[in-house]
Amino acid sequence: MEEQRENIETDICVVGAGPVGLFAVFEAGLLKMRCQLIDALPQVGGQLSEIYPHKPIYDIPGYPQILGQELVDRLMEQIAPFRPGFTLGERVETINRNDDGSLTLMTNEHSTINCKVLVIAGGLGCFEPRKPAIDGLTEFEGKGVAYLVRNPEVFRDRNVVLAGGGDSALDWTIFLADIAAKVTLVHRGDTFRGAPDSAEKVFALAKGGKIDLLLQAHVSALHGDGRLQELSILTPQSPVARIAADHFIPLFGLTPKLGPIAEWGLAITQSAIPVKPEDYSTNLDAVYAIGDINTYPGKLKLILCGFHEAALAMQSAFKYIYPAEKLNFKYTTVYGINTF
Amino acid sequence: MEEQRENIETDICVVGAGPVGLFAVFEAGLLKMRCQLIDALPQVGGQLSEIYPHKPIYDIPGYPQILGQELVDRLMEQIAPFRPGFTLGERVETINRNDDGSLTLMTNEHSTINCKVLVIAGGLGCFEPRKPAIDGLTEFEGKGVAYLVRNPEVFRDRNVVLAGGGDSALDWTIFLADIAAKVTLVHRGDTFRGAPDSAEKVFALAKGGKIDLLLQAHVSALHGDGRLQELSILTPQSPVARIAADHFIPLFGLTPKLGPIAEWGLAITQSAIPVKPEDYSTNLDAVYAIGDINTYPGKLKLILCGFHEAALAMQSAFKYIYPAEKLNFKYTTVYGINTF
Ligand SMILES: Cc1cc2nc3c(=O)[nH]c(=O)nc-3n(C[C@H](O)[C@H](O)[C@H](O)COP(=O)(O)OP(=O)(O)OC[C@H]3O[C@@H](n4cnc5c(N)ncnc54)[C@H](O)[C@@H]3O)c2cc1C
Ligand SMILES: Cc1cc2nc3c(=O)[nH]c(=O)nc-3n(C[C@H](O)[C@H](O)[C@H](O)COP(=O)(O)OP(=O)(O)OC[C@H]3O[C@@H](n4cnc5c(N)ncnc54)[C@H](O)[C@@H]3O)c2cc1C
Repeated sequence: MEEQRENIETDICVVGAGPVGLFAVFEAGLLKMRCQLIDALPQVGGQLSEIYPHKPIYDIPGYPQILGQELVDRLMEQIAPFRPGFTLGERVETINRNDDGSLTLMTNEHSTINCKVLVIAGGLGCFEPRKPAIDGLTEFEGKGVAYLVRNPEVFRDRNVVLAGGGDSALDWTIFLADIAAKVTLVHRGDTFRGAPDSAEKVFALAKGGKIDLLLQAHVSALHGDGRLQELSILTPQSPVARIAADHFIPLFGLTPKLGPIAEWGLAITQSAIPVKPEDYSTNLDAVYAIGDINTYPGKLKLILCGFHEAALAMQSAFKYIYPAEKLNFKYTTVYGINTF
Repeated sequence: MEEQRENIETDICVVGAGPVGLFAVFEAGLLKMRCQLIDALPQVGGQLSEIYPHKPIYDIPGYPQILGQELVDRLMEQIAPFRPGFTLGERVETINRNDDGSLTLMTNEHSTINCKVLVIAGGLGCFEPRKPAIDGLTEFEGKGVAYLVRNPEVFRDRNVVLAGGGDSALDWTIFLADIAAKVTLVHRGDTFRGAPDSAEKVFALAKGGKIDLLLQAHVSALHGDGRLQELSILTPQSPVARIAADHFIPLFGLTPKLGPIAEWGLAITQSAIPVKPEDYSTNLDAVYAIGDINTYPGKLKLILCGFHEAALAMQSAFKYIYPAEKLNFKYTTVYGINTF
């Protein structure tokens, strides 16, 4: 077993740092409750940062248009005064109820977080890599096959093959060209879906002999003895070629899967958590679900709805944590933002 | 009886052009439903424009801070593609159900508006002038006493007395100084609550003999024979002085009163309309209530909550108007804004 990474104590754990989880920190902060945000992705922003950072959203009230990443950046600015904690790149695997009613969360990296209230803002679930159908792919996971680049140094002076046609494939090809001994990019098409200037850079690297670019090609099988050693590649030129490789990084995007949330004793209906519409509480005490992950009559999976849900859930969380205190409803315009 | 001013036909009438009524136009527009906004105030924006245009709001999601008027301006920009109609400066007095289930609204200016669905976004109600306790005040309403300046030309070459210490009193004193034969400003204190540079201008006008400024004074009674002719004024110098006046404009701010909405057959609980939380529909068919005016378990009188309510209410309105059509839920990021 690995070492435990972190052991955190907080008022509120927010699982999922998408737009709704982020805004929950703001609403909690107004009521002087501290939050820890945990997300399986290495960055905040949920679907906005992962799926459509550069696309405009038109239905955020007060923004005739705003890019996905821009909204995330503004939300981060808005919650900064409340100094939330962040546990990123870790998936919450289990939750346990303690004798005093508090909850302990454990991540796949063995961080533990203790909290009084749990807010599940898990969206469509954890993003997981889309795995292409390649012989031997899962067999070599962790033995040469990786779906994410966590630490580029792993690839220094190695022979790396990447596959894909989107931004991640282009960006990592460009980045690793300077680090790896050899970089090959394999792509099914002959044009790229990613940003045009990244595509241009990749074509230029190929032309300059800095990388190998195999177009209209795909990897069909992986080979090796315990560790990855070779790939079979189909190209229009040579139906099956074998090339040597220490690492293979297929970058075909991420898709969300409900994941561990399904195992926490929550009622689940069609991959969503049914909640009470007056405070978005779940069937478990002190556990709320807000944003895309919840369901109730009339539910719309919209960002603006998640914001409202966050506000009502945090009012209810305050009453749960401080049953004896009077909750004075205050306008920010009149009372400002008082941090703690 | 006055002439009927307008006769409008639309899908959705939105009573109240505060932030929530404005955003309802956007959500309706996404579903290709046309809206007419009606507000008793001469400008849009509700409480934001009327009470705190220059104050920052901190809890609009995605805006670490935004001024009241700025939010209204951004909302107007956001709904512009859907070209809503505006009936401003008119109060909706009555609603009538037609045989086909549609509704006809009538304003105090005798405009009529026919619609399939009514959305009440009336906030705290109609803003009405705060009336000081002055003998004879209501008796001379419309006969020399006015609480609002609608058309400044009415005061050209007349003898006008204003009362108040806020921005409206200062602004209209400055404005009318150029138009009226004589302007007197009566104020209880000797400093002003309004903008410092407006106050400075008023002091300069008084010093230059362009206006009369009576400080630590108040109007105690009105006199006249059918029409206003004289005011009794109490000042520290002379306990009761009589001065001539054609017009008296007391400007002591506006306060919201539920007003005619209470007469429309809606269930009302503590000045609010109880609604179903799944679509914010009221006890009347095809009538929704959103924003500060509604109540339901968990209700918070926040702008961001009204935005969510607008979205759910407009989805429900669509199903009401087009029961046979399938409502395809679409992301603006993917489908953009298609006007009609
Ligand atoms: C292409 C596209 C266009 C869209 N356009 C619009 C639009 O125009 N307007 C609009 O309002 N909405 C739009 N949406 C929907 C919008 O993105 C979602 O409503 C929003 O992202 C929901 O926010 P959220 O915070 O609930 O969840 P998400 O953004 O999904 O974030 C949830 C986060 O939880 C994390 N997570 C889940 N489980 C765990 C776990 N066990 N441990 C740790 N982390 C976990 C995930 O990694 C993820 O980062 C669009 C969506 C897509 C895909
Ligand atoms: C000083 C102050 C500070 C505030 N600070 C914040 C804050 O920081 N954050 C926050 O979220 N909220 C804040 N609020 C509350 C916020 O302003 C309200 O929630 C918001 O204005 C509600 O919007 P609305 O559209 O529902 O109604 P309103 O803004 O009240 O607009 C309703 C409109 O309906 C019209 N109307 C009513 N009846 C009729 C009729 N019969 N015919 C025609 N027109 C009619 C009125 O004239 C009015 O313009 C604050 C309020 C105040 C007073």
